[in-house]
Amino acid sequence: MIELDFEKMGGLVPAIAQDVETGDVLMLAFMNRAAWEETLKTGRATYYSRSRDTLWVKGLTSGHIQNVKEIRVDCDNDTVLLKVEQVGGAACHTGYASCFYQKVDNGSLVTVGEPVFDPKEVYKE
Amino acid sequence: MIELDFEKMGGLVPAIAQDVETGDVLMLAFMNRAAWEETLKTGRATYYSRSRDTLWVKGLTSGHIQNVKEIRVDCDNDTVLLKVEQVGGAACHTGYASCFYQKVDNGSLVTVGEPVFDPKEVYKE
Repeated sequence: MIELDFEKMGGLVPAIAQDVETGDVLMLAFMNRAAWEETLKTGRATYYSRSRDTLWVKGLTSGHIQNVKEIRVDCDNDTVLLKVEQVGGAACHTGYASCFYQKVDNGSLVTVGEPVFDPKEVYKE
Repeated sequence: MIELDFEKMGGLVPAIAQDVETGDVLMLAFMNRAAWEETLKTGRATYYSRSRDTLWVKGLTSGHIQNVKEIRVDCDNDTVLLKVEQVGGAACHTGYASCFYQKVDNGSLVTVGEPVFDPKEVYKE
């Protein structure tokens, strides 16, 4: 088993998801040990939700799962990079392809691009 | 001034550096408010070193600075993505172009690629 350094962040490591096709950085989330092991086992990106204190299989509600094609680990074994196939074309709960849809422009944030889906349609009651 | 959410991580936000030319993810570090403001002001990636408890202008010792070409902020305003020109061709203190030079392969970590520089030559006493 690959041993990551979960100690530095109190049981978590940051995990970056990058689109394996476009190279776009899609999102950053966190993994605890269980999320890391689940990701390795299932090949689906699984994170740890700090707000809900639970494992979070990305896309379980929206259908926009992330199929993990490659996993990289950094020099300190304390950060993970997932190269993923983003099902549905959008990683962000707002409907944008990437969570990083805000660009710094002359001291302000401007929105780049258009949403891929309408959150109201995807996250129904 | 752009207001990031530093509260979620006790005064820090994760910052991803991505090579603006190749799209490769180079490294992940953290910024406190001073590092963020310094990065905006100088156009050079400046992080916060948790181990040394100080601002850390990336590349100040090695000469391998990161010229920031574009800054993205995520949907929650709690993560930053820097698209950088990596001077010297390598972001990692080990001499590899990217800190993510370890790949998960059949349950083990294998090294991908070759170092760009020899750390012993760059980090002299």
